[in-house]
Amino acid sequence: MNQKKKNTQQPLRIAIQGERYAFSEIAARKFFGDAIEIVPCRAFDDVFASVSRAQADYGVLPIENSLTGSIHRAYDLLLSNDLSIVGEVVLRIEQHLIAHPGVALQDIRVIYSHPQALEQSRYFLTSLKNVEAIASYDTAGSVKMIRDKNLRDAAAIGSRWAAEDYGMQVLKAEIEDSPENYTRFYILSREPKVIGQANKTSILFSMKSIPGALFKSLSVFALRDIDLLRIESRPLRGRPWEYIFYLDFVGNMNQELCQNAIRHLQEITTQLKVLGSYAAATLNSTTR
Amino acid sequence: MNQKKKNTQQPLRIAIQGERYAFSEIAARKFFGDAIEIVPCRAFDDVFASVSRAQADYGVLPIENSLTGSIHRAYDLLLSNDLSIVGEVVLRIEQHLIAHPGVALQDIRVIYSHPQALEQSRYFLTSLKNVEAIASYDTAGSVKMIRDKNLRDAAAIGSRWAAEDYGMQVLKAEIEDSPENYTRFYILSREPKVIGQANKTSILFSMKSIPGALFKSLSVFALRDIDLLRIESRPLRGRPWEYIFYLDFVGNMNQELCQNAIRHLQEITTQLKVLGSYAAATLNSTTR
Repeated sequence: MNQKKKNTQQPLRIAIQGERYAFSEIAARKFFGDAIEIVPCRAFDDVFASVSRAQADYGVLPIENSLTGSIHRAYDLLLSNDLSIVGEVVLRIEQHLIAHPGVALQDIRVIYSHPQALEQSRYFLTSLKNVEAIASYDTAGSVKMIRDKNLRDAAAIGSRWAAEDYGMQVLKAEIEDSPENYTRFYILSREPKVIGQANKTSILFSMKSIPGALFKSLSVFALRDIDLLRIESRPLRGRPWEYIFYLDFVGNMNQELCQNAIRHLQEITTQLKVLGSYAAATLNSTTR
Repeated sequence: MNQKKKNTQQPLRIAIQGERYAFSEIAARKFFGDAIEIVPCRAFDDVFASVSRAQADYGVLPIENSLTGSIHRAYDLLLSNDLSIVGEVVLRIEQHLIAHPGVALQDIRVIYSHPQALEQSRYFLTSLKNVEAIASYDTAGSVKMIRDKNLRDAAAIGSRWAAEDYGMQVLKAEIEDSPENYTRFYILSREPKVIGQANKTSILFSMKSIPGALFKSLSVFALRDIDLLRIESRPLRGRPWEYIFYLDFVGNMNQELCQNAIRHLQEITTQLKVLGSYAAATLNSTTR
């Protein structure tokens, strides 16, 4: 994957949902490198607002998890806002049990973390006796808290990076239920510019459900030998029998072939939005 | 939606993941009525095992949420096990803040619930000052615990039904972040029998990604004017460029048209599994 940095003194400002050391920050650093300034946002909406108002140069948005599926709220915001996808990152989600150096697992009575990290480490947590799990708003914040308060009967669940940065120990690595836990993130920009070599385009479209409607819309790509990378349908609430489709295909919007396909698709859809063309992430791509 | 009960003295035994009053139990009661015996299971795998070994008559499996997408783990288990889908339930997911009668919101210092319920009520929880959220393994268990221990500075997040059954008060209703939160459940059986009028069939199939492969597979349905209700692609891990597809179509496997389409589809797929034919749930269907 290609990285691009401003040639000015100012580091790129990257808006993420969540606190420092959240997976979105790791995704941001994987894409842009370490010379960035993180703009933490409370919710996905705030990531869009932050980039739209130029308070950040780019935003990072989780879009899909290999276990729990597409993040439909993220797609809703892509539809209702005018940011473009300019890049993609795939991260393996690992959860680690983190405590003070020298502390043993049997000393632990309380484990702090974000509800999602607790949920993803459920089998491990149920295997422990007499341990209470307490939800917090921030995985890294939990690590910092047990360090600052010198809690030696407590642990936190978080990233290896948070452990290292706070001088804490990984007491047990990879406690997540499933090792097949990947999250895909989009890099969002105000301008539909292309970072790196764009070989993938994401679109959203909706159509009335008439027999064969989806078949017709896919013919637009098949007739031009454009390969599809992903398709997902989702019913539109409040509009029975109307669907929105998430579709990724091979190619970019600078190519005439793709422009023709999209023009053709517009003839048969009720709504169509090109979200962006970008370089597809591969899991094994080593950015840094 | 149709219900069917055994005409014997034995109530139907329904396996669910989670504890009493979990949303899966509400889905089970919506489908089968109240004359059932709940078989609580620790994980999805145990629901499949329980039904397969005839320790339960049916299983209830959440398959898709309107905000967080398809539950891929559930699909994986449908693929690797031999249970059939015989019904479908859609539930609106509501979260309520539950406390002792007479307790006011400003008295609350601790809120207990399952991590998912905490996560879904995130905006509400961040709006509270000096309140700690503690994760538990069971929403209803949290309600019972604060009742049994007579904790008057604590609340739990759970269903209205759990509140009523434990004689507790709904302190604040519908605290979930999004009202557009629906979960779809499948009813699983050892036998591919059809409960009610089956108008929907779910299949899984995989194919190599060659240009137009998906288009060809959909032509199988389009050529026969069979309407599609849902399609989703998912990359197969460890097998680059190979995909598995979730597809729902209108019709049932007793119809020759559908049998022909499936036979045709088998010619062009690498793997194909019919998960079942069943009566489609509508959100407004009133079962009880």
